[in-house]
Amino acid sequence: MKLTLALLFAAAAFAQGPIRGFSEEAAAKQRALEAKLLAVPDARRIEAHMKAMASEPHHAGSPASRKVAEYALSQLRAAGLEAKIETFEALLPYPKDRLLTMGKFTARLSEPNFAEDPDSSDKNQLPTYNAYSADGDVTAPVVYVNYGVPEDYEYLKKQGVDVRGKIVLARYGQSWRGVKPKVAAENGAIACLIYSDPKDDGYFRGDVYPAGAYRCEYGVQRGSVMDMSIHVGDPLSPGFASEPGGAKRLTLKEAKTLMPIPVMPISYGDAKPLLEAMTGPLAPENWRGALPIPYKLGPGTTPVRLKLTHDWGIRPVHNVIATIRGSVYPDEWVLYGNHHDAWVNGANDPISGTAAVLETARAFGELYKTGWRPQRTIVFALWDAEEFGLVGSTEWVEKYLPELKDKAVAYFNSDTNGKGVLGLGATPSLNLFLEQVARDSKDPASGDSVLNQMLKVQRPFQPGPLGSGSDYVGFVHHGGIAGVNFGFSGGTGGVYHSIYDSFAWYKRFSDGEFVYGKALAQVAAMSMARMSEAAIIPFEFTRAAATIRTYWSEVDKLAADKNVGLPNVLASLDKLDAAARQFEAQYATAKSGTREVYLTERALLLPEGLPGRPWYKYSVSAPGQYTGYGAKTIAGVRESLELGQRAQAVAQARIFAQVIENYAAAINAAAAKLKR
Amino acid sequence: MKLTLALLFAAAAFAQGPIRGFSEEAAAKQRALEAKLLAVPDARRIEAHMKAMASEPHHAGSPASRKVAEYALSQLRAAGLEAKIETFEALLPYPKDRLLTMGKFTARLSEPNFAEDPDSSDKNQLPTYNAYSADGDVTAPVVYVNYGVPEDYEYLKKQGVDVRGKIVLARYGQSWRGVKPKVAAENGAIACLIYSDPKDDGYFRGDVYPAGAYRCEYGVQRGSVMDMSIHVGDPLSPGFASEPGGAKRLTLKEAKTLMPIPVMPISYGDAKPLLEAMTGPLAPENWRGALPIPYKLGPGTTPVRLKLTHDWGIRPVHNVIATIRGSVYPDEWVLYGNHHDAWVNGANDPISGTAAVLETARAFGELYKTGWRPQRTIVFALWDAEEFGLVGSTEWVEKYLPELKDKAVAYFNSDTNGKGVLGLGATPSLNLFLEQVARDSKDPASGDSVLNQMLKVQRPFQPGPLGSGSDYVGFVHHGGIAGVNFGFSGGTGGVYHSIYDSFAWYKRFSDGEFVYGKALAQVAAMSMARMSEAAIIPFEFTRAAATIRTYWSEVDKLAADKNVGLPNVLASLDKLDAAARQFEAQYATAKSGTREVYLTERALLLPEGLPGRPWYKYSVSAPGQYTGYGAKTIAGVRESLELGQRAQAVAQARIFAQVIENYAAAINAAAAKLKR
Repeated sequence: MKLTLALLFAAAAFAQGPIRGFSEEAAAKQRALEAKLLAVPDARRIEAHMKAMASEPHHAGSPASRKVAEYALSQLRAAGLEAKIETFEALLPYPKDRLLTMGKFTARLSEPNFAEDPDSSDKNQLPTYNAYSADGDVTAPVVYVNYGVPEDYEYLKKQGVDVRGKIVLARYGQSWRGVKPKVAAENGAIACLIYSDPKDDGYFRGDVYPAGAYRCEYGVQRGSVMDMSIHVGDPLSPGFASEPGGAKRLTLKEAKTLMPIPVMPISYGDAKPLLEAMTGPLAPENWRGALPIPYKLGPGTTPVRLKLTHDWGIRPVHNVIATIRGSVYPDEWVLYGNHHDAWVNGANDPISGTAAVLETARAFGELYKTGWRPQRTIVFALWDAEEFGLVGSTEWVEKYLPELKDKAVAYFNSDTNGKGVLGLGATPSLNLFLEQVARDSKDPASGDSVLNQMLKVQRPFQPGPLGSGSDYVGFVHHGGIAGVNFGFSGGTGGVYHSIYDSFAWYKRFSDGEFVYGKALAQVAAMSMARMSEAAIIPFEFTRAAATIRTYWSEVDKLAADKNVGLPNVLASLDKLDAAARQFEAQYATAKSGTREVYLTERALLLPEGLPGRPWYKYSVSAPGQYTGYGAKTIAGVRESLELGQRAQAVAQARIFAQVIENYAAAINAAAAKLKR
Repeated sequence: MKLTLALLFAAAAFAQGPIRGFSEEAAAKQRALEAKLLAVPDARRIEAHMKAMASEPHHAGSPASRKVAEYALSQLRAAGLEAKIETFEALLPYPKDRLLTMGKFTARLSEPNFAEDPDSSDKNQLPTYNAYSADGDVTAPVVYVNYGVPEDYEYLKKQGVDVRGKIVLARYGQSWRGVKPKVAAENGAIACLIYSDPKDDGYFRGDVYPAGAYRCEYGVQRGSVMDMSIHVGDPLSPGFASEPGGAKRLTLKEAKTLMPIPVMPISYGDAKPLLEAMTGPLAPENWRGALPIPYKLGPGTTPVRLKLTHDWGIRPVHNVIATIRGSVYPDEWVLYGNHHDAWVNGANDPISGTAAVLETARAFGELYKTGWRPQRTIVFALWDAEEFGLVGSTEWVEKYLPELKDKAVAYFNSDTNGKGVLGLGATPSLNLFLEQVARDSKDPASGDSVLNQMLKVQRPFQPGPLGSGSDYVGFVHHGGIAGVNFGFSGGTGGVYHSIYDSFAWYKRFSDGEFVYGKALAQVAAMSMARMSEAAIIPFEFTRAAATIRTYWSEVDKLAADKNVGLPNVLASLDKLDAAARQFEAQYATAKSGTREVYLTERALLLPEGLPGRPWYKYSVSAPGQYTGYGAKTIAGVRESLELGQRAQAVAQARIFAQVIENYAAAINAAAAKLKR
């Protein structure tokens, strides 16, 4: 009885408050629609999708990846959607020779299979490697460089440890993996090994697989080391789509995002003998991991040989695209995507999210079958080759860029999904919209709202800025399309990009009942339905302005710390505030909006892009050149300051001020077109 | 040439500034005397002493300990001093049975010998054990309790992990070892194992012995677990001397400082299987050490058996006492001591310091041979059975207490000595005196003054309060005698209380050239000479008052944090300030002082001692009941607050205010007696 009351109360709590973009009357209708949509996603179906899609290793370019795409295609069609596979071609190198030796020691470079996990002995697993590493055969002493970020090299220099001509050994963590060999090469190293230290990703965190969820002795994190700070997608077709039989394509030499030195990921089992053989000064305390040895800077006494070759294959990339045409605004698109390729089986990364997308699509399909039609066009996308460098989504964005710039209202993205709190990154104008979605969504474990769970971790509600790491990059950073990245996660486990990211692992250690998979499908369905049905596109600019002002105040403080006088941006931010308030005043009495509302986001693009990397055009945030996935807000100014380029910082601030004025003007224009 | 100039400059720097207690004229004479004294100590002789005294295991009560005492006796006599051995008797239990098993695993409980270190295979090594552990044979699951301090048990309670009826496994560090089983027993544990985690004391710190200086896999820290918070010295003769054939002696049952549960120290090699067998929640991150396992709270699944018996032997304790009678003030004594007993060979602990004492004594002996006589009586003491619980020094203090209270001007103490900066703990009135000694002493590595080296680590100059851990305890905390504990140390290495604390280790990893041994002998010689020759005993009270006021302000803040209203002590501290200033005014024109100056220190004694432990009478600082060696300043008030005993805190504050007024009155009396 008590329970029932609590549930009723909870249910009531989820149906309260206004919905951005809807009148009170329309909101009531919308809630009825959402109730129908939210009733569809089914945990058992998500489990079945995972079983089907994660049953075999299905790295991009492989026949198995094509099979997964075809499975998704058939599921989407069965759900009643128009769906197709759109194939591109891209440079997806697979490894050939891999050898790492030191004296008599030969590194294992493979992950053992365990009886507890049948998938660990699957055929056709891609060996452990870093995609887009250079070929090479080098022999040199090893130096330990901690996480391999620029400050680590500064420390080594102070200690008199020279990395030039050496192989560096970096541990995973703190920076994205592709940044490590890049910085290593900048410092004169001739090769880079990256290992998972048990302190960050192993027994220090808990029992290791298969006893527990954490990375085992010979577990390896595969992954791309494409230089994604320049651009993402196929390295041979920057800025344009690499379609099958397409004539245009760079040579390997012309490509700008290939790593110039050999790079290989290794396990802590393989790293231990190298670290044990180190001499030189003891590493500082915060450099030391959890291996049972004294961590030293090196160099090691015995030279290490690293030999790597790759096949540099051009391979097919199969995106699956499904559409429900909008009945009122067919040329306004609401998109939701998740990649389907994996490094190996990828039950967690990405199938936990991919499976949820199929259920979101089915929810709309079920309504479609009853005759319901969305007002705006709804697009579902399952991307291929995300792991190699967001290749499938980027090629697609590049192919349809003019159309997307015209039509895309917002792009929703998910990736890995698990037990836990909803993680959110978003462009600033979606702040209020997302708070309402979280407010109206139910956390399956607590029965409380998703929002309240989020507020336990961070107050106030504030989605993070978007950096990199999944398929929203092309949309947001290249296309200036409003974007969201979401997924539930408790952040446990250490099977990332290994053969142990399997159904068996996921079932035991993550969302084994698939209730968070269902919750993600529901959050996504609600988001898309509100975006597609709103009378006025539910962007909100006062919070956006406040968010951008916060970012600016950080940059401004950084400039003050570095004694750099920046031009006045506050006046532009004041104009933005005024425009946002003006929009709200109009919105209060408006009945409907126009496409100008979502086109405001395009005004945030930098006409010339970021310094040295024109592909990245979004002014509010970008992946950091030396953090990788981590977002840098107002990156043009911030990174110029960080890198000590004062004149460039000043110039970028001037450009940013202009962008903000453009944004304010676009908001004013959108406000003026709101209809009473 | 440059070097010579630098040395001249350095030498000049060391002969500047006034010397407390000496007129300008007398200071010049004193510097000439000191130059002669400081020329005597010889690094090669210190090395020879270490070779002789650390050649065999010489734990207290053993024939080898007697031999070391006899060696010291012969050296002191050869130096021209009157010297004798004073023998006491005390409870010094040796281990009999030691067994630790878990299923098929039997702990090694012994330290391997290494070809690189001949002493590691010496005969007659005392096995690894904790002296004054209870006998017992218990079998129970093990719980991991981190450092085993009270907060650790609070955390376990919150996690629902019950230690009652369990064996706890604590790691060395943070609290003194004897506190760990005491807190364990208070929490209902039936036995306690203490291990050296490699994070704190092993490979995490650097290469392990014999490759490097740090504790190896099966290295063990022996040590006493006497409950020294109650009293130190022989457990069977609290407050009185335990002389051979003495009739008075408590039974084992009556003794208050024996540990009620079995306790045993183990290596990280032996601890690893126990920790690996743990289940239960993962330990929080700051509980995790550097073993290659996930640290869990436990309990372990397989019960562990610990069997311990001891012989409870009453054994002889041989102090070596040497004297040079004062020519002007024979009844004013300046003392300097260091223990000579060790857990095994003890090259570092204590012989590195003991050997230096012999050179300090020889310096005075050489002058004595020329006909020089000190004004005050100089006493050198080499104590026995320090390791068991400061037994030799404490029995001696208890035997001579009335005489010491009357005659002791100051007690200087050293213990382990090594490369590095001078560490200093002292009673507050010696602050200025010690700064001048450090100013006028040369650091052998840098050629700069010892003071400047100290100021690189901590500014301003401020000796720490005295807690426990060496033989000054009886003098300061029981006798109210001004005290100093000093020694050079770089704090490297991990052979503490193991068989690897050997000449070979010391030669390779510590002060292998014995220049810091020589420097300690010089610092001690200068200190004693100034104390023995000063026209006015060189105490200074304005700094003492400031130091005590700082301690009080900390206690006062603690009281405020705990919402306890304390009586007014500031008025008393103001009186102390006034007295200190009045003393300085008199001192400025005084020509000589009287014994009232050093007797001021007695005024700082608490008539009833500290709550629950009347043996400890010094009001300014005391070893903490739950820290062990670590000093608690104004312990009567501070610990009452920490333990939530509000009424007692108020009562203790009242008593402390009275003590401070007594101290001020004693200073006023001393000032009044200064002679022009």
